[in-house]
Amino acid sequence: MSKRRVSQLLTLRSRLPAAPRCQARPFTSAARSSSARLTNGVLLAAAGAATVSVLTCAVANQKPLKLDSRSLADKDERTKREDGVTEESPMRLRMEEFIREKQKEIVFALEQIDGKAFRLDEWQRPNGGGGLSCVLQDGSVFEKAGVNISVVYGTLPKAAIDKMRVNHKNLPDEEQLDFYALGLSMVLHPHNPMAPTVHLNCRYFETMKPDGTSQAWWFGGGSDLTPSYLFDEDAIHFHKTLKDACDKHDKDYYPRFKKWCDEYFCNKHRGEARGIGGIFFDDLDETVVDAENGFAFIKEVLNSFLPSYLPIIEKRKDMPFTPTEKEWQQIRRGRYVEFNLVHDRGTAFGLNVPGSRVESILISLPLTAQWRYMHEADPKSREQRLVEVLQNPKEWV
Amino acid sequence: MSKRRVSQLLTLRSRLPAAPRCQARPFTSAARSSSARLTNGVLLAAAGAATVSVLTCAVANQKPLKLDSRSLADKDERTKREDGVTEESPMRLRMEEFIREKQKEIVFALEQIDGKAFRLDEWQRPNGGGGLSCVLQDGSVFEKAGVNISVVYGTLPKAAIDKMRVNHKNLPDEEQLDFYALGLSMVLHPHNPMAPTVHLNCRYFETMKPDGTSQAWWFGGGSDLTPSYLFDEDAIHFHKTLKDACDKHDKDYYPRFKKWCDEYFCNKHRGEARGIGGIFFDDLDETVVDAENGFAFIKEVLNSFLPSYLPIIEKRKDMPFTPTEKEWQQIRRGRYVEFNLVHDRGTAFGLNVPGSRVESILISLPLTAQWRYMHEADPKSREQRLVEVLQNPKEWV
Repeated sequence: MSKRRVSQLLTLRSRLPAAPRCQARPFTSAARSSSARLTNGVLLAAAGAATVSVLTCAVANQKPLKLDSRSLADKDERTKREDGVTEESPMRLRMEEFIREKQKEIVFALEQIDGKAFRLDEWQRPNGGGGLSCVLQDGSVFEKAGVNISVVYGTLPKAAIDKMRVNHKNLPDEEQLDFYALGLSMVLHPHNPMAPTVHLNCRYFETMKPDGTSQAWWFGGGSDLTPSYLFDEDAIHFHKTLKDACDKHDKDYYPRFKKWCDEYFCNKHRGEARGIGGIFFDDLDETVVDAENGFAFIKEVLNSFLPSYLPIIEKRKDMPFTPTEKEWQQIRRGRYVEFNLVHDRGTAFGLNVPGSRVESILISLPLTAQWRYMHEADPKSREQRLVEVLQNPKEWV
Repeated sequence: MSKRRVSQLLTLRSRLPAAPRCQARPFTSAARSSSARLTNGVLLAAAGAATVSVLTCAVANQKPLKLDSRSLADKDERTKREDGVTEESPMRLRMEEFIREKQKEIVFALEQIDGKAFRLDEWQRPNGGGGLSCVLQDGSVFEKAGVNISVVYGTLPKAAIDKMRVNHKNLPDEEQLDFYALGLSMVLHPHNPMAPTVHLNCRYFETMKPDGTSQAWWFGGGSDLTPSYLFDEDAIHFHKTLKDACDKHDKDYYPRFKKWCDEYFCNKHRGEARGIGGIFFDDLDETVVDAENGFAFIKEVLNSFLPSYLPIIEKRKDMPFTPTEKEWQQIRRGRYVEFNLVHDRGTAFGLNVPGSRVESILISLPLTAQWRYMHEADPKSREQRLVEVLQNPKEWV
């Protein structure tokens, strides 16, 4: 990394403002239970299905979900400050350090493309953990771009543990368990209808022993592309980059995670996928891979993001387009909103738990969208071809 | 009614096109169960909580929910054709006749205001029932306006009946019951930010004996206003009109239904109501009112819609506004979308059942909407006052 680059990244870091007030006001002045401090929107919008369902169960059953293990969070802060993070540190600290670096790198790269600086909002949670939302709006390339990190320290009650143990047998049978959850969540919506929206996500969840060492853990993540106008070469490039990343680790990953992505990001009520897919994976634990290789795979996925997307946005961001094509993009944006608000489990969970940072969760929504009654594309048009591909996901590589 | 008016209404009726293909293509070519023919979007978007939860339960438990009682639907069609609907006819036929007339009357009145004709889409369900969607888009006053009717004939399995009997003890303890469900659902979104969005809904549900006479029944309905810019006189007029309608029947109705409306149309994750309220009621059955008075009340509510809204739209539709004020409206429209897609139970149910007429369900969404990260109104501004009122619903009359 060049000195200039280091300096720019440090400047980025120094632009962090004081923590703003960022919680939605509750409708009534009902008491805030400890579960009200659970959410940090971004993480839960990123959480894997298993994690979400457990946390939902815990909240729905109204068992107090103590989210913040102050002593462990403090210990981690002290470790980071005094010792730094090394290969011997607990995996959560290594993941967090890596994720924070990726966030800076991605934000910086996007600022170079757009020319406008991201707004940075950092907040601490009173009992440990917190988040950093980096958002660009009304840029010259991106109408909206969000690159968000969230960290939660908490304690799972027995009911939640029991539910999680269905998918993670390595969880001990305890009355309660301290947990740590980390998420990176990114959505980019370009102005130009020829340039696709992209989504990237990465999650890490672990439970800790009383001494702070990792006990049970798993990784999740993925990346997917949502064009308004489909350029096959873009889809092929995007998928090939992801496949190459997967193949370095396990030749089964790409076919499995590509299919998982097609199934998850499905606008069921419309009978079409949200986009042309990518990869999606969850619950990557010791039954699938050891911790070091799991971490290496996550790093590979995140490191492949910029190579997968930058060539596409560079090629498409300045293409000419007509008002009709802009309108088509807006209708496709309406579909994106529908998926996120109706089907995305993380979003639904985040929004339904009091105290969520709603503004962070809903960064994923485009700046503008349209809903036109009975709008249909002309047969044999480019728009219709996109719809047909979304209804019948293709094998791109 | 003048001859000219009759002629115009007949012309409206004659504009009904042939039934279009209007079902979303399923994502896979999985077999269509009988429950796939359940929905007609509009009805379920209009269904009361009890009805929705029962139907949800029935579908979720994967008991076949036979929706179409062909013989009874045929019998009703024959009755309507040969005998006409009289005061001795089953309540469902009287309600349906009234609702269809109101739909025509409302559509006609809105066409007079806007100058553009509504598009009419009628469809029959293969085994009885169907719907009529009347939609105006890109008008001169309304960006989008939908006035929809839906009728469903079906059969409830035992699990669904048992669930419904919790709220409706008058349901018999049977293995299955034929049911009829009717809904009128209307949302108007004006162009002008000074003119409020309005929503109106009316529902009727009954189970039938084998001879086709009504057995158990209940009414539901309501109307509520969603301004972008709050004019107190509009809120007062709207509420007063509803209160006057309620008071003619029961002095308890307005306070109860006003409060119910405030509670139901709450964007919980935002800590604010969707709009400045109105009335909302459900499960109006023989424990609350006899059938004739229930019908009379529904008629009163529907008859009060035009008087409650027309003076407001006439006053506001041509007011001057700035681009900033238009943008505020768009942000408020984003909130409207959030409520409908995240919290509205009828919409969620309709969208999650295969075969719904999604285009009808989502007529409720505005033509355009915006989502601006961390957008806050200036303190002491008109926009901020609206937000404060939405966070703390007022007693308008």
